[in-house]
Amino acid sequence: MNQKLGKASINLEQPVYIINSASVVGKKEGEGPLGLLFDVVGEDDMFGCNTWEEAESSLQKDAVFLAMGKAGLKPEDVSLIFAGDLLGQSIATSFGISSYEIPLLGVYGACSTCGESLALGAMSIAGGFADKVICVTSSHFGSAEKEFRFPLEYGNQRPLSATWTVTGSGAFVLGSENAISVNNNVTASVSEGVSLPARAKILGMTVGKIVDYGLKDSMNMGACMAPAAASTLEQHFIDFGSQPEDYDKIITGDLGTVGQKVLIDLLRERGYDISGVHMDCGIEIYDAATQDTHAGGSGCGCSAVTLSAYILKQLEEGTWKKVLFMPTGALLSKTSFNEGQSIPGIAHAVVLESLVKN
Amino acid sequence: MNQKLGKASINLEQPVYIINSASVVGKKEGEGPLGLLFDVVGEDDMFGCNTWEEAESSLQKDAVFLAMGKAGLKPEDVSLIFAGDLLGQSIATSFGISSYEIPLLGVYGACSTCGESLALGAMSIAGGFADKVICVTSSHFGSAEKEFRFPLEYGNQRPLSATWTVTGSGAFVLGSENAISVNNNVTASVSEGVSLPARAKILGMTVGKIVDYGLKDSMNMGACMAPAAASTLEQHFIDFGSQPEDYDKIITGDLGTVGQKVLIDLLRERGYDISGVHMDCGIEIYDAATQDTHAGGSGCGCSAVTLSAYILKQLEEGTWKKVLFMPTGALLSKTSFNEGQSIPGIAHAVVLESLVKN
Repeated sequence: MNQKLGKASINLEQPVYIINSASVVGKKEGEGPLGLLFDVVGEDDMFGCNTWEEAESSLQKDAVFLAMGKAGLKPEDVSLIFAGDLLGQSIATSFGISSYEIPLLGVYGACSTCGESLALGAMSIAGGFADKVICVTSSHFGSAEKEFRFPLEYGNQRPLSATWTVTGSGAFVLGSENAISVNNNVTASVSEGVSLPARAKILGMTVGKIVDYGLKDSMNMGACMAPAAASTLEQHFIDFGSQPEDYDKIITGDLGTVGQKVLIDLLRERGYDISGVHMDCGIEIYDAATQDTHAGGSGCGCSAVTLSAYILKQLEEGTWKKVLFMPTGALLSKTSFNEGQSIPGIAHAVVLESLVKN
Repeated sequence: MNQKLGKASINLEQPVYIINSASVVGKKEGEGPLGLLFDVVGEDDMFGCNTWEEAESSLQKDAVFLAMGKAGLKPEDVSLIFAGDLLGQSIATSFGISSYEIPLLGVYGACSTCGESLALGAMSIAGGFADKVICVTSSHFGSAEKEFRFPLEYGNQRPLSATWTVTGSGAFVLGSENAISVNNNVTASVSEGVSLPARAKILGMTVGKIVDYGLKDSMNMGACMAPAAASTLEQHFIDFGSQPEDYDKIITGDLGTVGQKVLIDLLRERGYDISGVHMDCGIEIYDAATQDTHAGGSGCGCSAVTLSAYILKQLEEGTWKKVLFMPTGALLSKTSFNEGQSIPGIAHAVVLESLVKN
């Protein structure tokens, strides 16, 4: 039996496999430390489109196309797609993935959406509701600045606590088997009859709640999200009876350098020292010193592309055996911000394990 | 075993029960034909708040509070909450339900969100991932007009094809048992030790895909959504091997009078005549002739409050034995609209059955 664990966690009876995945990023992400690992790096951030929003949609479309191709699947092989982005009414998703005609369950958790989609996708497979599932999320620097702060043409200054929204989309194909036999030669890269091993497995998840410390600075979202990350992480340790050292890495989505410090401090107060194992996708994806990205990367796409390109690679190679992947989201809109509301946070954690035996 | 059925449907091994529910609406909805059935009708549409967005948040907060109370539950008894609304970044949800501290999975399907939340909520229980789940959605006339069209102060005219966004929120408590024993006397209305029967059961669902006929008129969303409703409904009939006459009612969310006609026509072309069993929550909730609501009601809240107050009542009383509940969503944002994009639709269907034996 699948098992509800403690207050907010789920332990899967059978693991769910990340069969394959893909990442598509913009020019700046391609120039960063992980640049060589992404599947596709755009020549510019418009990706041949007329608007930032359309460009973001094309990121999702391409990431899903590549992930399906690498897994040897066609759209009709996919039972469900869990998808979302940061834009109002998730329009990057609506206009990005419609052509695949896959039954869609739209999700919203701000920048935690990648974690939420993986959690729900894994549940839908573990519960017997779906055979193959795709989880996709995206963000785009231009569309996000326009949506949340100022259009780029305004040329506003950015404080050092600000993060830089990643232009990118990561898509993941989930299934119940740890290898997939390719029966239909849909891409040149995958030959008929070949059996492809999965990239990693999902063992369980901790679903986050909204945590609001009353912070209001949309230029310091790391600090806004860190309390939610601390809450989910503490709950995860309690529910699973685990400790920081049970994981090779505990990976947040986009806290950046400011949020990382807050998270480590908050958890230290609660008796957990994660300083030795903590990693943040937002810190990894750019070289802040040379790329002028200040506190780090952020956005739905940040954790998604880092998971696909970098984290799953480490699990695949067995460098890491077990990690906790926990994207973090800041729950604001320009309306709530302009009306003086605070910026609550949320974080969802997914337990990932390597398929490499010792 | 829970069973994937056909292309886009799920048949639950064991039914999931709607243990209880609640509806909170605005003044205009209270004056409509269903007015006497709602749990709470506001004296005005501000609900004591300073902004429309805060008012919408308070709707969700109150609906969840009432639904929990009627089910004899406290927030800590609830494993997961699936919640969403129409506003950018779902802020009605973020600021509405945070005080309950229930693990949150945010969903977005425009006005189909109530169907999506019930589908996912039922899956999470049927899969063994949760004990009790709450599904809540909301909309508000003032916040929606500002979000999608014009602020009310602008005083724009509305064509007859336009719908009127319902000010309201519906919350549903789901569980695996068909009655709940009240062990903790949390509300005056529920006594300790009493066993409360559930309101109805969920047997399965059909998950919709995005359908885009290229329509662009945000003042005629019924027509924009009808093709998606037709697609999901046809897929449902195929997947379940059912016919329109297998249901006492086939209930869409907010197609209104224009969309209803389109839906019936589209399905007739595909060989299904639903004209005898079709009902639309948007048509039921207002008296268009006297309330000046034109094509009908709309919004996430429309189908949610009609389900809680009216549809579940019919199932409870055994007037209807089996209905298909299918909220419909129009996937637009003001950005996509201003950029000249079309308005695709999506619809998710949930099979509901009465607990009343013949």
